[in-house]
Amino acid sequence: MIFKLEATDGRARSGSIYTPKGSITTPVFMPVGTQGSVKSLDPNDLSQLDAQIILGNTYHLYLRPGVDLIKDFGGLGKFMGWPGPILTDSGGFQGFSLGRLMKIDENGIKFTSHLDGSAHLFTPEKVINYQESLGADIVMPLDWCLELPSEFDTVKMSVERTSLWAKRSLDSKTRDTYALFGIVQGGTEKKLRELSAKQITSLNFDGYSIGGLSVGESKSQMYGIASFTAELLPEDKPRYLMGVGSPEDLLESVAVGIDMFDCVLPTRVARNGSLFTSKGRINIVGKRFRSMNEPIQSNCDCYTCMNFTASYLSHLFRAKELLGYRLASIHNLRFITYLMANIRNSIQQGEFNDFKNKFLSEYQTTDESIRINQKKKWLDIKNKTFGK
Amino acid sequence: MIFKLEATDGRARSGSIYTPKGSITTPVFMPVGTQGSVKSLDPNDLSQLDAQIILGNTYHLYLRPGVDLIKDFGGLGKFMGWPGPILTDSGGFQGFSLGRLMKIDENGIKFTSHLDGSAHLFTPEKVINYQESLGADIVMPLDWCLELPSEFDTVKMSVERTSLWAKRSLDSKTRDTYALFGIVQGGTEKKLRELSAKQITSLNFDGYSIGGLSVGESKSQMYGIASFTAELLPEDKPRYLMGVGSPEDLLESVAVGIDMFDCVLPTRVARNGSLFTSKGRINIVGKRFRSMNEPIQSNCDCYTCMNFTASYLSHLFRAKELLGYRLASIHNLRFITYLMANIRNSIQQGEFNDFKNKFLSEYQTTDESIRINQKKKWLDIKNKTFGK
Repeated sequence: MIFKLEATDGRARSGSIYTPKGSITTPVFMPVGTQGSVKSLDPNDLSQLDAQIILGNTYHLYLRPGVDLIKDFGGLGKFMGWPGPILTDSGGFQGFSLGRLMKIDENGIKFTSHLDGSAHLFTPEKVINYQESLGADIVMPLDWCLELPSEFDTVKMSVERTSLWAKRSLDSKTRDTYALFGIVQGGTEKKLRELSAKQITSLNFDGYSIGGLSVGESKSQMYGIASFTAELLPEDKPRYLMGVGSPEDLLESVAVGIDMFDCVLPTRVARNGSLFTSKGRINIVGKRFRSMNEPIQSNCDCYTCMNFTASYLSHLFRAKELLGYRLASIHNLRFITYLMANIRNSIQQGEFNDFKNKFLSEYQTTDESIRINQKKKWLDIKNKTFGK
Repeated sequence: MIFKLEATDGRARSGSIYTPKGSITTPVFMPVGTQGSVKSLDPNDLSQLDAQIILGNTYHLYLRPGVDLIKDFGGLGKFMGWPGPILTDSGGFQGFSLGRLMKIDENGIKFTSHLDGSAHLFTPEKVINYQESLGADIVMPLDWCLELPSEFDTVKMSVERTSLWAKRSLDSKTRDTYALFGIVQGGTEKKLRELSAKQITSLNFDGYSIGGLSVGESKSQMYGIASFTAELLPEDKPRYLMGVGSPEDLLESVAVGIDMFDCVLPTRVARNGSLFTSKGRINIVGKRFRSMNEPIQSNCDCYTCMNFTASYLSHLFRAKELLGYRLASIHNLRFITYLMANIRNSIQQGEFNDFKNKFLSEYQTTDESIRINQKKKWLDIKNKTFGK
C-alpha cells in the first residue's frame, strides 16, 4: 500500500491510497459488510454508488462461514464478488461487544460465540493470520477497546496491552501485499492518548487508526479527542477514525485531518426507513411522504432517486417489502459517498471550510439523545458481559 | 389486446399477446408482485431475467397504498417503475383467504382487512373500477373461488354467481385500452366446469381464466380438470390457469393448451432457501452447498449464477443476510422464465413432448405431501373465516 497526500486545506487532507486491488481517494467512507455482504446490497450496487473500499468483520467471518473456507475461495473479495479493496478489523471489538467475554489477558481475548456459545481465543498472532486468510488489503491488529467512561487505570492498561499486541502483530505479518495499521487507544484521557500515539507510531505501521471513540462519549468529547489524537500522528500515513459516522461526524473529523471512516449507521438507519437528505434525516413512513411524487432528494444521482418516488419508498416501508431496505441502503450510502466526493473536491479547491459550513447550516443533525440511546443498547450488551 | 396463436404441437400452443405496454410470447409465466413489488426484486432485476408481464394483487394495493393514490401516479407500472404489461386479479380471492369474510351475496364480497380490521365491500363494478385505476393491461372480474373439496350445490352456486358477476363486470368496463378475461369456475365437477365454461364463453371476453384450482385438490385432479376445462375454451383467445405453478405443473398444463400462469411459488420458496435446478429443488443451507465452489446451476445465465457460488448463497442464507433472498428469487424466477422460453421454442419446433419428457425425467418433483401441507396453511386460514 502506498499513501500520497495530495492536498491540504487547514488540517483537512486529501490524498490517494494505492492497493493491489485499486486506488482509493481520501477522505473516504467505507461501507460495512459485516458478514460478507453490505446488508441488502450486491457488489454491483456498491460499484454503482462509488464505494471505493468496503469493510469486513473478522469476528463474524471467522465464526461463519470460517476464514479457512474464505481462504479456499481466494479471499473475501472473490467469495462475495467484490473486486475492490477490503479492510478488515481484528474482531476484538465484536469479541467484547457481541460475544460473551470470558477472559482478557496479555495473551489475548477469550470469548464465546454469540451464535452457538462455543469458546474462542483471539490472540494478536491469530487475528493477523485470520485476516491474511481473508485476503484483506488493509488489516487491523488486535486491540483493547473500552467502553466510555472508564477508570484511568483501566484505560492505561488497555493502552499498554494494545501496544504490546501491536508489536506482536507486526512480528506475525507474513506478507507485504497488504497494509497493517496501528491503533491508538486511550479513551478520553489526553495523557493516555499521547502515550498510546507515541508507542504506536514508534512502530512501523502503514497507517494509523484512532480506536476507542464513538463508544458512549459525547460528540464534543469525541471531536476533541479525535482532533487531539490526529495531531499526534505522522503526516505521511493515512489516519482512520474507526466506527464513525454521521454526516456531521465525517465533516468534523475531516476538519481535524482524518482520512478514513467506517460506520454501520447509513445502512442500519436505512433499514429503519431513516434516509439522509441535505436537510437532515427523514423518516420515510412519515405522512408527508405517502403521496410525494418526487425522489427523496431531487438532486441525488443514486439508483433509488433516479428511479423511484418518495411515495413508492414510503409504501415499501409501510408494507415491509424487502425491496425497500435495499433502495434505502443504496440512497444512504450514495449520500455519504457523494458527501465524501464533495469534501475531497472542496479540500482540493481550498474551500473545505466553506463547504463544511454550508452543509452544516442546511443539515439538521439528529438529536444527540437519540444517538446516545442507540449507543446505550451496545453498552448494555457490553456491560452485561464485561464483568461490570 | 390482440392474441395471435402462432404454433401448436399436440394441444400445446405458442403465440403472442400484444398490449399497449409491449408484447408477450406465450406460454408465459407471470411473477407475482403482490404489494407493488415482486418481493425483494426491482424492475431492473425483472427485465434482466426476462419477465414479460407481472401480476399485481388488487386486494393488497386497494388496502395499501390505495388505488386512488396509484391512479394519481399514472398507474401501478409508473408507481413501481415497471414499464411492461401488468395483469391484476380482482381481489376477491384474497378477500376470502386473507381478510375475514363477513358476507357474500349477489351484490359482492364483504370482508374485513387483514391489516386493520376495517370493513370493505368488493362488487363486480368496484373491482373493475379499481383495476382501471391501477392501469392494468389485463383485468380479472370478481369471481367466487371455493376451497376444495366443496359440496356440489355450493360449487353450483359459485358458478352461477361468477357468471352473473362476469356480465356485470363487462358492463362496467369503461375503456378499450385493456383486456378483460372471463373466469371459469366449477371446482372438480366436470358438469359444473361445462356449465361455467358455456356461460362465460358466451360473453365477449378477451381471454379466459381457469379459476378454483390449486386450492387443495390433488395434482392429478388439478391436471384433469385443467385439461377438461381448456378443451371447452375457444382456440383464438388466451387461456390463463390461475395460481399455477411448479415446473411440473407448468409443463403438464402447457400440454393441455394453457397459455398463461402466475404463482408465488418461485419467489416464496426462494426466500426459504429452496432453489430450482434441472434435477429438482435443492435446499441451499444443506451441508453439501457450504463449500461448493460452483453456481447453483452451472448452465444458468441468471445474475446470481453468473456471479456467485452456491457456497456464498449458502452462507447468505445461514447468516440470514437480506441479499440472499434477492439472489435466490432472481435465480428461481429466471429458472422458470428460461423453462418457459424452452417450452415455447419446443412447441415452435414441434418437439414439445420430447422436451417435456426429457425435463421431467431429470427433474425430481417436490413430494406431494409437502405441497399439501403448504396448501393446508392457506385452507386453515380460509376455513376459520369461511363459516365452515
